[in-house]
Amino acid sequence: MRILGVDPGLTRCGLGMIESLPGRRVRLVAVDVVRTPADQGLELRLLAMADALEQWIALHQPDAVAVERVFAQHNVRTVTGTAQVAGLAMVAATRAGVPVALHTPSEVKAAVTGSGRAEKAQVQEMVRRILGLEESPSPADAADALAIAITHGWRGSGAATVVPISGGQTAAQRAWADAAAGSAARERAASRRFAR
Amino acid sequence: MRILGVDPGLTRCGLGMIESLPGRRVRLVAVDVVRTPADQGLELRLLAMADALEQWIALHQPDAVAVERVFAQHNVRTVTGTAQVAGLAMVAATRAGVPVALHTPSEVKAAVTGSGRAEKAQVQEMVRRILGLEESPSPADAADALAIAITHGWRGSGAATVVPISGGQTAAQRAWADAAAGSAARERAASRRFAR
Repeated sequence: MRILGVDPGLTRCGLGMIESLPGRRVRLVAVDVVRTPADQGLELRLLAMADALEQWIALHQPDAVAVERVFAQHNVRTVTGTAQVAGLAMVAATRAGVPVALHTPSEVKAAVTGSGRAEKAQVQEMVRRILGLEESPSPADAADALAIAITHGWRGSGAATVVPISGGQTAAQRAWADAAAGSAARERAASRRFAR
Repeated sequence: MRILGVDPGLTRCGLGMIESLPGRRVRLVAVDVVRTPADQGLELRLLAMADALEQWIALHQPDAVAVERVFAQHNVRTVTGTAQVAGLAMVAATRAGVPVALHTPSEVKAAVTGSGRAEKAQVQEMVRRILGLEESPSPADAADALAIAITHGWRGSGAATVVPISGGQTAAQRAWADAAAGSAARERAASRRFAR
């Protein structure tokens, strides 16, 4: 199963494609970060992102597109642009007939590091290990996109993880609780591993 | 000049098309409210909105698309969906080669009623009078879309009114100050007219 993970953003949008194999194995297919210049008109930046998303989906033919869920409560200054790019990803996937799933940042961190409050560097390092890469994917947006795809491959598209962007806080909280409980052992190991 | 006004929203998206004529005259071309069911998946709702926006632009061939600017500070619960539909409108217009402008709610209210803090009913009533209609456009989303189009026709696409959705508060404040100052006489008249 080929999964495209999208870490939405207007300045940098991470795109990470993995192949999910039996036995929780995952393989890197492609990764990139699409950038748009901050001094360009918003409508041109959004169009560039829409074009890039459509091209990636046409080129890599994913079986699923997993997008990081956007919370309006955080980063008020950038949330509209981030939400807009996430919306464009959902429309591009659905128009191409590819199922869409949303995963919260906490779910993604918990899935790959064992802790829903992991630092960016920890996510990057675990993505490197999980995919068997020599170097960490960089910038962080690239690693985040791959982490979202890995999360989807491991967690599947169960109802608890596919929560609508507006509302659905209860489902998200439930999913987070599941993730936290299910990965308690890994969390302890990861905490030791990354303790300074 | 034909202007399509968009009042973005995920549950209801107002679309109002006007023709702007010399001497501040405006004529209604078409108005509609596109709805998506709240129990449908977010990606299907966004796709339905994208399709409707593209169809309207292809059918009515506007010379400009004016979209209400989304503020993340307000309506945190619904802002992501609203921002996403606004983004889809911007991409649909730009892809069709149609210039996009953003106007803040205060600018729109000030332009059509003379007060940046006018009530919804007041906007509806002024849109009815300005377009010479027998009845007020209903629901409010339809009137708001027409009000955005009228605002664009009257204010033009000057730099002060085309503000990016993220940031640009200073330009918005300047535009609002211009609108407030320029319509002081009408504001006094409107206050009397709508006083209870």
